[in-house]
Amino acid sequence: MYLDELWSKTSELLDCEVEVHGWIRNHRPQKEFGFIDFSDGTSVKHLQIVYDSTLKDFEKLTSLHNGASIQVKGILKKSEGKGQDVELKASEITLIGDCPESYPLQPKRHSLEFLRSIGYLRPRANLFQAVFRVRSMAALAIHEYFGSHGFVYFHAPLITASDCEGAGEMFQVTTLPIDKIKGEVNYKNDFFGKKTSLTVSGQLQAETFATAFSKVYTFGPTFRAENSNTKTHASEFWMIEPEMAFCDLEQDMDIMESMLKYVVSYVLEHAKEEMEFLDKFQEPGLIEKLNKLVSSSFTRITHEEVITILKKADVKWEFAPEYGCDIAKEHEKYITEYFGGPVFITNWPKDIKAFYMKQNPDGKTVAAVDLEVPGAGELMGGSQREEDYDKLMARMVELNMNTEELDWYLNLRKFGTVPHSGFGMGFERLLIYITGVENIRDVIPYPRTPGSCDF
Amino acid sequence: MYLDELWSKTSELLDCEVEVHGWIRNHRPQKEFGFIDFSDGTSVKHLQIVYDSTLKDFEKLTSLHNGASIQVKGILKKSEGKGQDVELKASEITLIGDCPESYPLQPKRHSLEFLRSIGYLRPRANLFQAVFRVRSMAALAIHEYFGSHGFVYFHAPLITASDCEGAGEMFQVTTLPIDKIKGEVNYKNDFFGKKTSLTVSGQLQAETFATAFSKVYTFGPTFRAENSNTKTHASEFWMIEPEMAFCDLEQDMDIMESMLKYVVSYVLEHAKEEMEFLDKFQEPGLIEKLNKLVSSSFTRITHEEVITILKKADVKWEFAPEYGCDIAKEHEKYITEYFGGPVFITNWPKDIKAFYMKQNPDGKTVAAVDLEVPGAGELMGGSQREEDYDKLMARMVELNMNTEELDWYLNLRKFGTVPHSGFGMGFERLLIYITGVENIRDVIPYPRTPGSCDF
Repeated sequence: MYLDELWSKTSELLDCEVEVHGWIRNHRPQKEFGFIDFSDGTSVKHLQIVYDSTLKDFEKLTSLHNGASIQVKGILKKSEGKGQDVELKASEITLIGDCPESYPLQPKRHSLEFLRSIGYLRPRANLFQAVFRVRSMAALAIHEYFGSHGFVYFHAPLITASDCEGAGEMFQVTTLPIDKIKGEVNYKNDFFGKKTSLTVSGQLQAETFATAFSKVYTFGPTFRAENSNTKTHASEFWMIEPEMAFCDLEQDMDIMESMLKYVVSYVLEHAKEEMEFLDKFQEPGLIEKLNKLVSSSFTRITHEEVITILKKADVKWEFAPEYGCDIAKEHEKYITEYFGGPVFITNWPKDIKAFYMKQNPDGKTVAAVDLEVPGAGELMGGSQREEDYDKLMARMVELNMNTEELDWYLNLRKFGTVPHSGFGMGFERLLIYITGVENIRDVIPYPRTPGSCDF
Repeated sequence: MYLDELWSKTSELLDCEVEVHGWIRNHRPQKEFGFIDFSDGTSVKHLQIVYDSTLKDFEKLTSLHNGASIQVKGILKKSEGKGQDVELKASEITLIGDCPESYPLQPKRHSLEFLRSIGYLRPRANLFQAVFRVRSMAALAIHEYFGSHGFVYFHAPLITASDCEGAGEMFQVTTLPIDKIKGEVNYKNDFFGKKTSLTVSGQLQAETFATAFSKVYTFGPTFRAENSNTKTHASEFWMIEPEMAFCDLEQDMDIMESMLKYVVSYVLEHAKEEMEFLDKFQEPGLIEKLNKLVSSSFTRITHEEVITILKKADVKWEFAPEYGCDIAKEHEKYITEYFGGPVFITNWPKDIKAFYMKQNPDGKTVAAVDLEVPGAGELMGGSQREEDYDKLMARMVELNMNTEELDWYLNLRKFGTVPHSGFGMGFERLLIYITGVENIRDVIPYPRTPGSCDF
């Protein structure tokens, strides 16, 4: 029996014989008896196993190693000890797979850096048992939210011949023998007959599906070949990109807010023990922070108003706030504190935003929005998309973009164009916020960052 | 209002004013009135809109084009016409975005080849409205199945430095300026400081998570740079790879069978209209085929027994069945017909299977399984994994593999090794089976195949 089953019917199983299999997380043998902190990883809650010298192989059992896998038969009993309600009084313990004393993951505090170096073992550590279970739960929550709101889940292509953001920081994908190329590359000979890269966003393709199904979302990997070694950048990460037809910026924000609250509530409810663990050991006050988010109403304010507030503030800024310019981390922090909760900042200067965003009548701003969250900074970004063919074309020409390559994207504005909006949320950024873990490397099973592609 | 909402409360809304927005799928203007076949894509069921000459801009309305987007106000009425229960009697129709008469997607039968060439518009066609909605529903079903059975959803890395299958048919991922390389490549200068590729399977990493959480699954993209132009091969596709600790081959098959039945039942129940459409226009008998699968019990038989049956069969084979060899498509077909349902074939000759499969005591076979399904051939493949360090190491050395590169994988057998099993299912192969669509290019939003990477 797996532990998740056992915990779901403890009272039923009390004083009954059960059989479990799992790993020794910590073993404390004594003279006449022994305690095993036992888990099979199906629950953050461990099971205490008690055995005593009446077992025929008692001597051998006392020398069982941490990390070894065992099978245990016994009676589930009310526990008299502190720290657990029930324990398993073993009648038979069988070693399945031994573990040497040199096992790197001992029951003590290891540094996160060290745990990254044993990435294939760290999911067995308590912190990562909680983090990756929360990751799984949050992913489920996202699918349930969109599924129950009539969204079609759309798998955007990963290999692409176009560059959505025009950022240029893409990984090239090729089957050419690159050590044999001399000078100019003939991409006719490459696998797809053209130059291809890994996608940085599925948005443009999601727009084609939004104009077919009205409500769609992507949830898949995206890639950035950006040489940034920070706590919040990874070269491979998962993104959620919803896209809605017949939806303006206000309605876009409604969905952003409702989705975020749903996912956070869902995790708080369905990963209670994981969140309690993280609240206790990772970020004291974590649950309170998240509960506050769920019950708060999000402020909506324009970029211009934000700059006015920042300019009036009695703060010595490292970067002076300016109309028409981006805002810095210190400004984001100030604004969320100023309003005491999450803030949607809308109508950004067009020159610092992407080409596809809807141009506002003022000629200076676009219908873009960033969501700033206390203690997390920017958590999502979205916009209404430019649905006017001529305006979009003009903007692309202005930015010197290849309009021919994106003719299909432009054509969406020719064939029954509609107002539509969408947003993007980096899944790992959300997880950093929900788990209280600080480094993106610690919320991704196998992180890929500049110079690092292990396991 | 979106149509999914309207259809969910039709009786409530009867004789009430509603406002909808969407696209004209087909327009049939008459002298005194007009009919619009209308959809916003949130449901395969369209809404019929009726307008007449009492509307002030009647003349203009009669010239509305197919494909145009409109907003319609009107009263929802019981319909007297054939083919629908209700219709919308319009009081106001507003054009949102026009569509030229050259619109490629006219309301007539287009070939699948032509529709692929307008891949950004084909999701608006009836067939693809059904197919991609079923795709979304099946993905949800997979997450629900594993979520409700205590599995942790694990995101396997996409960029990898190792080659799971040893197949060698991988896409290289690089940021090196490949037109400037002269001779030998110094991978120290590449983004990750080593040679990297796109993964062909997340299984090896999933095993590390299975030995931490016991029950895990992946659901993500995988890549094969195989130069096969067939109806069932794509270069980029989605795979589901569950992996379970304390699970032998029999239990593995239990999960394969239960998952498949769950997903098929879920789609039949939650995508009823889509499946009826596909049954009617794509594969007559589709629903019956799927219902039969759900109610059948799957046969379990060894590879050796299969060969014996094939040898005894009164059939002139194109490929003679042989003990110790793989079986051909014609054999798969015969076997599923012979048993009148899905067949698990187990204990395959080790030389035609992967290195990580558990070696059986006979020294000749491995604890592998393929699931053969009537009308679909091989739908899933799985195995118990070799958990014995020495046996696994010996096999890898025998196959001339780089054991150093996979030391972390081998180490799982050192640190509390456990019997464990898993399987893989190509998501698109499942969709071909469920939708009755024949070509993998038609169940992927934007297919990537040799020489083809459009949109």
